[in-house]
Amino acid sequence: MAQYINMDNLRFYLFEVLDMDEILKYEAYQDYDQDGINILLDSIKDWADKSFYPYFREMDEQPVHYKDGVVYSHEQIGKVMKEGGENGYLGAYFKYEDMGSQMPRVIFAATSHILQCANNNLPGYLNLTAGAASLIANFATRDLFDKYVPKMLSGEWGGTMALTEPQAGSSLSDITTSAAPNEDGSYSIKGQKIFISGGDHQGCDNFVHLTLARIEGAPKGTKGISLFIIPKHRIEDDGTLSYNDVFTASDFQKLGQRGYSTVHLVFGENENCKGWLVGEANKGLSYMFQMMNGARIDVGLTAASTATAAYYASLQYAKERPQGRPLTEDGKKNVDAEQTIIINHPDVKRMLLFQKAILEGALSLIFYCSALEDKVHNDSDSEAHHLLLELLTPVAKTFPSEKGKDTIDQGLQVLGGYGFCMDFPLQQYYRDIRIMPIYEGTTGIQSLDLLGRKIPMAEGKALGILQEKITHTIKEASKHESLKPYADQLTNAMQTVQSTLGHLMPFAMQKAYQSYLADATIFMDLFSYTVVGWQWLHMGLKSIERLNSETGISRNFYESKLHTMKFYYKYEMPKVKACAKTIVSGELLTVGDKVLDYIN
Amino acid sequence: MAQYINMDNLRFYLFEVLDMDEILKYEAYQDYDQDGINILLDSIKDWADKSFYPYFREMDEQPVHYKDGVVYSHEQIGKVMKEGGENGYLGAYFKYEDMGSQMPRVIFAATSHILQCANNNLPGYLNLTAGAASLIANFATRDLFDKYVPKMLSGEWGGTMALTEPQAGSSLSDITTSAAPNEDGSYSIKGQKIFISGGDHQGCDNFVHLTLARIEGAPKGTKGISLFIIPKHRIEDDGTLSYNDVFTASDFQKLGQRGYSTVHLVFGENENCKGWLVGEANKGLSYMFQMMNGARIDVGLTAASTATAAYYASLQYAKERPQGRPLTEDGKKNVDAEQTIIINHPDVKRMLLFQKAILEGALSLIFYCSALEDKVHNDSDSEAHHLLLELLTPVAKTFPSEKGKDTIDQGLQVLGGYGFCMDFPLQQYYRDIRIMPIYEGTTGIQSLDLLGRKIPMAEGKALGILQEKITHTIKEASKHESLKPYADQLTNAMQTVQSTLGHLMPFAMQKAYQSYLADATIFMDLFSYTVVGWQWLHMGLKSIERLNSETGISRNFYESKLHTMKFYYKYEMPKVKACAKTIVSGELLTVGDKVLDYIN
Repeated sequence: MAQYINMDNLRFYLFEVLDMDEILKYEAYQDYDQDGINILLDSIKDWADKSFYPYFREMDEQPVHYKDGVVYSHEQIGKVMKEGGENGYLGAYFKYEDMGSQMPRVIFAATSHILQCANNNLPGYLNLTAGAASLIANFATRDLFDKYVPKMLSGEWGGTMALTEPQAGSSLSDITTSAAPNEDGSYSIKGQKIFISGGDHQGCDNFVHLTLARIEGAPKGTKGISLFIIPKHRIEDDGTLSYNDVFTASDFQKLGQRGYSTVHLVFGENENCKGWLVGEANKGLSYMFQMMNGARIDVGLTAASTATAAYYASLQYAKERPQGRPLTEDGKKNVDAEQTIIINHPDVKRMLLFQKAILEGALSLIFYCSALEDKVHNDSDSEAHHLLLELLTPVAKTFPSEKGKDTIDQGLQVLGGYGFCMDFPLQQYYRDIRIMPIYEGTTGIQSLDLLGRKIPMAEGKALGILQEKITHTIKEASKHESLKPYADQLTNAMQTVQSTLGHLMPFAMQKAYQSYLADATIFMDLFSYTVVGWQWLHMGLKSIERLNSETGISRNFYESKLHTMKFYYKYEMPKVKACAKTIVSGELLTVGDKVLDYIN
Repeated sequence: MAQYINMDNLRFYLFEVLDMDEILKYEAYQDYDQDGINILLDSIKDWADKSFYPYFREMDEQPVHYKDGVVYSHEQIGKVMKEGGENGYLGAYFKYEDMGSQMPRVIFAATSHILQCANNNLPGYLNLTAGAASLIANFATRDLFDKYVPKMLSGEWGGTMALTEPQAGSSLSDITTSAAPNEDGSYSIKGQKIFISGGDHQGCDNFVHLTLARIEGAPKGTKGISLFIIPKHRIEDDGTLSYNDVFTASDFQKLGQRGYSTVHLVFGENENCKGWLVGEANKGLSYMFQMMNGARIDVGLTAASTATAAYYASLQYAKERPQGRPLTEDGKKNVDAEQTIIINHPDVKRMLLFQKAILEGALSLIFYCSALEDKVHNDSDSEAHHLLLELLTPVAKTFPSEKGKDTIDQGLQVLGGYGFCMDFPLQQYYRDIRIMPIYEGTTGIQSLDLLGRKIPMAEGKALGILQEKITHTIKEASKHESLKPYADQLTNAMQTVQSTLGHLMPFAMQKAYQSYLADATIFMDLFSYTVVGWQWLHMGLKSIERLNSETGISRNFYESKLHTMKFYYKYEMPKVKACAKTIVSGELLTVGDKVLDYIN
């Protein structure tokens, strides 16, 4: 089997980059320790080897497809759902009293990462089901919990989040799916949802759609949105299932993730669709955001995982393919020499190190965010963790998605013409990852969230907390002569973040919001490069410490980390200033109606 | 029919950005004038509307495929080949005495652009056939010309360039296809060629492969390569065709351009394959480079054309799709307001203007290079033109390919989830363009060519000529107050090119070629952004002149150009400095064997 992950790397993030003791000290996690976690990770790797990786290409070549109301899908979907029920993956992070194993989120993320590296088309079925069940566990009545969650955590029933409607797209304030109260406590549902991932397929007996809808008479906009459980087949009083008028009207044939079902659902076409309210009326969006924030980080993780697998595929090719000759000292090719392996060409090394620098930086940030989730859920004083997580979530979603896409582009390029051929896996990774900057709020939306909401929230407190963390890392790193230049570069980048915000803030103060937010996407880049630069400096620091103490994985491993950190600082960090220059240029070229005349 | 090109734009490049009089003054082009060219462009547009655009999606959905020795292909391929014979497209730039219309190269490029915008899967069949026939016309005997060229220019026979071999890849010095002289003046050929575009399909009766091979006993390396005509069916003395032992062993199923056949050919499996030498022995590579240089510019053009069509597809969606609401002055959404059309969102405007800025800059550069081809072929004093064309060719191939790919990525993003769906064309453009940075020498190879060969050639004379041209544009632009800031930015960028080369040159002098070339790809970026910045300043200048003279297309058209120029300078030009910072960082992270230990 081809390599698709480096488990040492994963352990490095968990046990050396993160302070895992800080997480495992929480009461809830008392049953977890490093040895146990390692055994768990190995068992998930075995599962990935057996049930995920072998089906990756096949699921693409035999895509999910819709015909006459049936969504035909690869049989492996149902199998891993059942297996994920049996081995406890589906309930991993649920509380013991909610049928779970009370696993730390960051460990769950690590297990997801392994599965996503092996086959990014499958884990969504599992993770969305767990996410939907978790919403029920957290906000619905125990009665609803008992009806739905056991079947979901066993993998028999699939769970989804149903937000998007044809006419509303990303703008949830415009959703029109309606809910009319019935005497039995249920609601009659009518409406349509599109782009529902895992929303129908042959692998599950039933589907539980966590659906946003409006109760009749609810306020306009997002303040009138409620959350409902809408099963495809509802449970009658005698326990039997009957069709709940949830019709799959079509599927979406996609560029990538072709093994991952995406459907168009019609609720109540025959006036016979019932839903059950989760929590309080009109608070649906805030409940959904619990799932959404987790889902955003999971999209970032899926992107980084897909990029990881693509990296190893390109690395393997680069190590095996003979082509050309190295330059000799006089700059001429020596035609009598043996062909060289392409990894010896500097530009191929550059393309490989680029992938490594981006995706390892991205993974470090994502696991940092997952650990923050554990802190938010468990720390008695969680406000700072919460603010930091809120600030970093759009970055953890966007950077891996956008830049991970770029890494796979370079991975494909390593293979030259073969990269473009269907016989090699790079083209599939290239297609699969393209959805990541769109899922769960596009890059444009994430960028508005970052600059428009997260930076100003709590009077800039979140950014202040982040700055403290970064300053601390800079201070520690500066103690090592060899890290000083990178610490200085990061200090500069932080100052650039500050001065750029200093340029933008007056617009926000004057309520010139269009001007404030016009280049939010460029600010996302600037901010992300800085944040990931911080993660790299931190990883560099941890690597130096290990090198000095001669403990851990291997000297070569830590030297590789330091080399890759240097690569990130040489090739990526200069982009911070370029982004800043764009933002502070003073020209406003994308605001106002006049601009429309120029786009033709 | 959806818009896929703006013909005003095309005329702007030809008749306002370029000095077309300079081209049309040449003796060879005396039969061409602006009115005639406009009529010609319109007729090609009609052809594109009828025979190219309607088959774009279909050719992707019913890809070329191989079974039992037959390459099954869309019937439109054979039709446009015949039509291109009848309407003179295939022979357009051939001399009158070579059965051609003696069309200027730059006008031919404009006609190709129209066809490529309409359907990038089809023009390759035509342009490669014309290119192969042109090699025969220029370097083979009249006897060979008479045997092959008429059938090629009528579209009955397809032509190809056959360079790549399985074991050699991009390294032509390693090709092993052999040629043994026969008594009848032909050579017996034995070998394999892969990735042969248009190399076999049902649309033509015969294929003429312009093939690189080694005559027995030839020197090693590129100095022992000769060029042969190898037909699939050879012409017997009585004029009949007989099978020439050119076997199609398989095709390549690809990520994109799935309507464009790509095959694996085996010559002489049954010891019965004959080839005919073109020109002198061992000079094959220099002949092939005539075709190759043209093909490189054509790849750049195909990339820019594909990006053009994708731009209009995303623009159309952006103008029609309602979603969300504009920000109000207080930064809140007004849920009572009507939905807005997404083009009103600044980030959507940014994504559209990004596409426009890149692809219009790229097109301007490509037509500039095509005009240089005309000057090289026709000017009595052509050395300066030749050097400039040599210098700019790798840029004209790479910038449109790499950045055009990025523009389609943003075009896809404009459509959100629909961009990822097979029902919309963006995903096809996204797949189709991905081959462009690989075709005819990858970006890595083009970058080595630019920094390693073209910059130092003739003691830097080509760069000197370019600098003169840029300085002239800066001087002219600086006369206009409104262009001064951009002229200054371009001056800075030129200085950055200089100072970066100043940093690199000592490595070349010391023959530390690996160090000199390690970041050639980053230098390509730096240099390309500068060169395209020059093109934009020039376009800005021409637009100001038109605005002041109140002649030409429309005020709005020229204002749009100026706006897009500003966009390019705000968003793209800052990248010049970032690239320079990377190159001059002083760290060498991709050279040497030790680095291999770090890539794991």
